[in-house]
Amino acid sequence: MGAGYSSLCLSTFTHHHSFPLTAFHCKTKSKSNFPFNPIYKDRSFNNPLRRIAYFPQPIRFSGCELPSKVGTLKCGKVREMESQEGVAAITNPMRDLETVDEDLVQQMIYDALVWSSLHGLVVGDKNVQRSGRTPGVGMVHAPFALLPLSFPESYYSQACELAPIFNELVDRVSLDGNFLQDSLTRTKKVDAFTSRLLDIHSKMLEINKKEDIRLGLHRSDYMLDEHTKLLLQIELNTISCSFPGLGTIVSELHRSLLIHYGEHLGLDSKKIPGNSSVSRFAEAMAKAWTEYNNPRAVVMVVAQSEERNMYDQHWLCSLNNTYNVTTIRKSLAEIDMQGELLPDGTLLVGGQAVSVVYFRAGYAPSDYPSESEWSARLLMEQSSAIKCPSISYHLAGTKKIQQELAKPNVLERFLDNKEDIAKVRKCFAGLWSLDDAEIVSKAIERPELYVMKPQREGGGPIFLIFTLPFFLLFTIIYIIHWWEHCFRTRFRYFISGNNIYGEDVRETLLRLKKEGSEEDAAYILMQRIFPSESLAYLMRDGVCHKDQAISELGIYGAYLRSKDKVIMNEQCGYLMRTKISSSNEGGVAAGFAVLDSIYLT
Amino acid sequence: MGAGYSSLCLSTFTHHHSFPLTAFHCKTKSKSNFPFNPIYKDRSFNNPLRRIAYFPQPIRFSGCELPSKVGTLKCGKVREMESQEGVAAITNPMRDLETVDEDLVQQMIYDALVWSSLHGLVVGDKNVQRSGRTPGVGMVHAPFALLPLSFPESYYSQACELAPIFNELVDRVSLDGNFLQDSLTRTKKVDAFTSRLLDIHSKMLEINKKEDIRLGLHRSDYMLDEHTKLLLQIELNTISCSFPGLGTIVSELHRSLLIHYGEHLGLDSKKIPGNSSVSRFAEAMAKAWTEYNNPRAVVMVVAQSEERNMYDQHWLCSLNNTYNVTTIRKSLAEIDMQGELLPDGTLLVGGQAVSVVYFRAGYAPSDYPSESEWSARLLMEQSSAIKCPSISYHLAGTKKIQQELAKPNVLERFLDNKEDIAKVRKCFAGLWSLDDAEIVSKAIERPELYVMKPQREGGGPIFLIFTLPFFLLFTIIYIIHWWEHCFRTRFRYFISGNNIYGEDVRETLLRLKKEGSEEDAAYILMQRIFPSESLAYLMRDGVCHKDQAISELGIYGAYLRSKDKVIMNEQCGYLMRTKISSSNEGGVAAGFAVLDSIYLT
Repeated sequence: MGAGYSSLCLSTFTHHHSFPLTAFHCKTKSKSNFPFNPIYKDRSFNNPLRRIAYFPQPIRFSGCELPSKVGTLKCGKVREMESQEGVAAITNPMRDLETVDEDLVQQMIYDALVWSSLHGLVVGDKNVQRSGRTPGVGMVHAPFALLPLSFPESYYSQACELAPIFNELVDRVSLDGNFLQDSLTRTKKVDAFTSRLLDIHSKMLEINKKEDIRLGLHRSDYMLDEHTKLLLQIELNTISCSFPGLGTIVSELHRSLLIHYGEHLGLDSKKIPGNSSVSRFAEAMAKAWTEYNNPRAVVMVVAQSEERNMYDQHWLCSLNNTYNVTTIRKSLAEIDMQGELLPDGTLLVGGQAVSVVYFRAGYAPSDYPSESEWSARLLMEQSSAIKCPSISYHLAGTKKIQQELAKPNVLERFLDNKEDIAKVRKCFAGLWSLDDAEIVSKAIERPELYVMKPQREGGGPIFLIFTLPFFLLFTIIYIIHWWEHCFRTRFRYFISGNNIYGEDVRETLLRLKKEGSEEDAAYILMQRIFPSESLAYLMRDGVCHKDQAISELGIYGAYLRSKDKVIMNEQCGYLMRTKISSSNEGGVAAGFAVLDSIYLT
Repeated sequence: MGAGYSSLCLSTFTHHHSFPLTAFHCKTKSKSNFPFNPIYKDRSFNNPLRRIAYFPQPIRFSGCELPSKVGTLKCGKVREMESQEGVAAITNPMRDLETVDEDLVQQMIYDALVWSSLHGLVVGDKNVQRSGRTPGVGMVHAPFALLPLSFPESYYSQACELAPIFNELVDRVSLDGNFLQDSLTRTKKVDAFTSRLLDIHSKMLEINKKEDIRLGLHRSDYMLDEHTKLLLQIELNTISCSFPGLGTIVSELHRSLLIHYGEHLGLDSKKIPGNSSVSRFAEAMAKAWTEYNNPRAVVMVVAQSEERNMYDQHWLCSLNNTYNVTTIRKSLAEIDMQGELLPDGTLLVGGQAVSVVYFRAGYAPSDYPSESEWSARLLMEQSSAIKCPSISYHLAGTKKIQQELAKPNVLERFLDNKEDIAKVRKCFAGLWSLDDAEIVSKAIERPELYVMKPQREGGGPIFLIFTLPFFLLFTIIYIIHWWEHCFRTRFRYFISGNNIYGEDVRETLLRLKKEGSEEDAAYILMQRIFPSESLAYLMRDGVCHKDQAISELGIYGAYLRSKDKVIMNEQCGYLMRTKISSSNEGGVAAGFAVLDSIYLT
C-alpha cells in the first residue's frame, strides 16, 4: 500500500508534495504555498485551528483497545470510552470493483468524467494561470470518488442530529464574550492571527456591539474511529465552509451513476441520501437578506482574489438569483478600498448597501497580507450587515474553544438539554493534560494510541519559512546519522507539524518525566483516531487511482436568528471526503482528497 | 475596424492564424492542422463541400443592387432576385451596450462566464494536450456571444418552414442513386475524397442495398443578404451537424442573462425562441433505435479520436440515457478493428449489436488517414444498422448536388408541392455559367457582386502542403513587386482558396474573353452574399472582444422514415453563429466565430 502510494506520487504527481492529514502540520504551510491541491483551501483538511488530530495509518495490532474508563483530569475532559453497540464493521464492500468487468469500470469512469464536465463539477486547474481569477478558463473536473462510500445509517443519523445542537452551541458561546476572551488568552500570546481576531472582538465588546440577526453556515466534520467504533468530531467549521455546492453535485453524480450502473453493481441509487446543502444554505442566506429588510441591499461574498474553488462558491451564489438577491464578490483589499460605513451602521461597498457578508476568505493568516485586510474585517464587523460569520462565531469555531468546551461542566454552561449535552460529548475525542500520571503511564506503555500536541497555537505562514529549511537541513543530517536520537525526534516534530506520534510519544514522555521540568504544561495528550480504511477509486485530473482510503463526513448546519426568534436551525446536507491513506515511515500520512458521497448501509 | 481586429489578433491571439470565411479556402487546410479554433471542426464554417461563398467584408457603395431579373442559363439556376417586402433593416441595436453602465457590462460578462462553466457550455482547450481525448480535463468555456442577435421573426419563420422540406428533399435525392452518381461524375475525377464516397455508394447500388429505416439529422445554414434582403442558404449539412448541444445551452445562457439583466437593457427574455435541438435530436435517435427493434443494441457515435468539441456530442448522448439507450463511442479505426458483420446484416462492434450509427467523424478527408477507416465506413454501410447519415444522405449534402438541385426543373424531380419548390428555390443564391454573355458583362461591370469559383472540387489536405510554401513565397515576391500583375492574381487565388473576388473577377473575365479559350468552362459565377454587420460582444478564452460581426443561422431538422412511414419530419431548434467580420486588404475575411442565439424582432 505504501509502495503503491509512493509509485503514484512519484510517477503521477512528482510535483505534488505529500501532506499529512494532521491539522497541526498544515499550519506549517501557508495557504498560498500549498502546492498539492488547490481545492483544499477548505478549512477542514488544512485548518490551522483543527481540533482533533487523527491518524490514518492503520497500525495492525490485535486485542488493542483504548482504556475503557478514564478519570476526570485537570485539563482534560470526562468521557467514557464506551464502544457503540450494534455497529456493523465500517467496511466498504461496494468499493471493490474487482469482480466487475473492467470494460464496465472504464465506461463508468468515462461517464463520470463526462457527467462532471456537463454539470459544473469543476475547479480551476492549478496549471492554468488565470484559472483562479477568470471563470470559464482552465477548468478541470473536481477530484471525486467514483462511487459513494458505504456508511452506516446509524452514524449518519447521529451526525445529522448533532447539527442543530452545534448550531445552537455556537450561537450561545458567541454571546459569551468573556468566555471567548478568557479561553483564548494563552493562545493570543503565541498566535498572531488569533490575536488580531481577538482584538477586533475586544473592540466589539468595548462598544457593546450587538448582532441582532445572526447567521451561521457551519460544517461539523467527523470520522469513524475503528478502535472505539465511535463517531468522533474532527472539527467544527464556523467560517468559510467549503463544498456545499460541489458536494451536492457529487451526490447527484453518484446517484446518476447508480441509476445507470446500479444493477450491474448490485447497488441501489436510493440509498444515497438526499443532499440539499447548497439550496438550504442559499435559503438561509436569502432569509437573512429578508430579515435585514433592505430590498436594494446585496449579499457580498468575501473571496480570495485567487480562488480555484470558485465554482463551489458560484453554485451557492447562483441560487441567490432565484431569490432575486443580487450577489457581489469582493476581496478583503477591495472592501478596504471601496467600503464605507454610514452613520446608521449600513455597510456600503462600491456604493451598494450590503445586507449579508458571506466569508469565503478571511479564515487564514495568508488572507491578511497587509493592514488593509484587517481594516476591512474591522469595518464589516462594525457595520449592521449580517456577518456570516461574525467575529464571535469565527472565534467560537477555533480549536482552543472546542478544547475548552470539552472540559468538565463547560458544555452545561451553554446547553440546557441534558440529552443534547450527552450527544455532543459523545462525539468529542479524548483529551488529557500531562499532569495525570495514570494517563502518562498508559501513553508510555501504548504510545501508538495517543498524539502529543503542544498547547500553544502555531505561528502561521512565518512558520513555513522556518520549517522548510529546517526540514531540508534535518533530512540531510538525518541521512548522515549525526546525533541520531535528537534529530530523529526533532525531524518528526517538524514534518508532522507540532504533533508527536508513535515511539516519539514514549520518548518525549520519558524525557519530560526524567527532567521533571515545567515543559510538560506545554503539551496535552489526545486520543488518536484510527479511521477505517477501504479501497477507493479516486478520480483526479482525468486519472483514476485505486488505493486504500479513509473518509471524513461533514454535516452542514444552517442557523438564523433574528433577535429572540430562531428562524432556521437545521441540518442541511452533507459532505463526504475521501483521501488516500498511504503513509510514509515517518508516521506522516500523505495523499490527496476527493469529494465523495454516502451509500447508507 | 480592421485595425481593431489587427490589434486583437496581434495582442491577444498572436498564435492564431486569421482565416477566411469562404469555404474553399478551408479546403486548403487539413483539419488536424487547423490551429485557430478547435471547435470549428464543424461542417459549416469549414466545410470543404460548402455550397455558397459569402463574403463578409462590407463594401460600401450606394445604389448598388443585384440584377433584378436574370434569365435562365445553361449551367445556372433560375431565380428572381426579388427583394422581400416588409423586411426591417437587419440591424442589431440591442448589441450596442455603449449606453449601458460599464460595471453592469462587466458584471454580465462575469456572470455569463460563471453560468457557462456551471452549465456545461464547455469545449476542450487547445492549449491542454489531453483535452481532446479525456473528458473533464482542460476545459474552457465555449466561445459565445454575450447577447443574442436581433433577427427578424419573418426570416426565422421562413428558415424553420424550410427544415421539413429539406429533410424530405434529402431523402428523395438519396433514393435516386443514378442522379447522385451522374451529378458527381466530374467531381469524382478531381476529388479523391468524394471519389471514395462514390465507390462505397456504387457498391451499395450494385448489391441493391436498401435502407428501410432512414434517419437524417440535418442542419441548413443561412445568411441574410443585405443587398437583396433575402435569406440565402449557405449550405445543407447532412453529416455531423455540430452544436445541437451547446447551441441549446447558449440559448439558455442568453435567456438567463436577460431574465436577470433584461430590465436594464430593455430586453425581454421571452423573445429568445425556444431551442430544443438537442432533445429533439435525441428523441429522433431514440425513435430510430426503437424502430430497429433490438433492445440490446446500442447507439454508436463515430467520433474523431481527438475531439475538443466532445461536450456538444456528450450533451446529445447523455440524453440517450433518459431513453434507456446505451451509447458507445468509437473512432473509425476502432470500428475497423472491433467491427464485424453477422450474416443477417447485424453490425457488431466490440461484440455489441449496433442499431444506430451516428457520425460525428468521417466527413473530411483527414478522418480517413488509412485504408482502415474506409474499410470501417464500408462495413457500416453494408450493415443493417441505421446510418445517420447513410452514404446516400452524405452525398446528397455535397455542394455539387446542391448546385445540381439549383438547375432548372431539377427540384421538380424530387418535390411534388409547388409551394415547397418555390420556398426552396427562393433561398438559393445565384449561380451562373460563364457562357452567359450577359452575366459576364455584368460581372465585368460590377465584379464586387460576384464570386468566381472553379468548377472542380479541391484537393484536400495535400493542397495545404503546396499552399503554405507558395503563400510564403508569393508574399515575399509580392513585397518586392516582381512581376506584379501576375503574382497579385495568383497570390489571391491561393489565399482565398480557389475563389476569385473583387477586381480579380474583372481581370480574369477580361483575360478569358480576350484569350477565347476553353478555360471558362472551368469556372462558374456565383452571387456574392453580403451579410449584414453589427456590433457584437464575443467571448473567447475568458476575454470579451467587441467588434463588428456577421452571423449565420442554422436550422436543425430531424427526419425518420421506416419503410413507407414518415415517423418524424421536423424542425428542431436552431444554431446562431456570429463571427468577427474584420477583413484584410487581400480581400480575405478573418476572425473567429462564437455560438449565439436569436432575439426575435
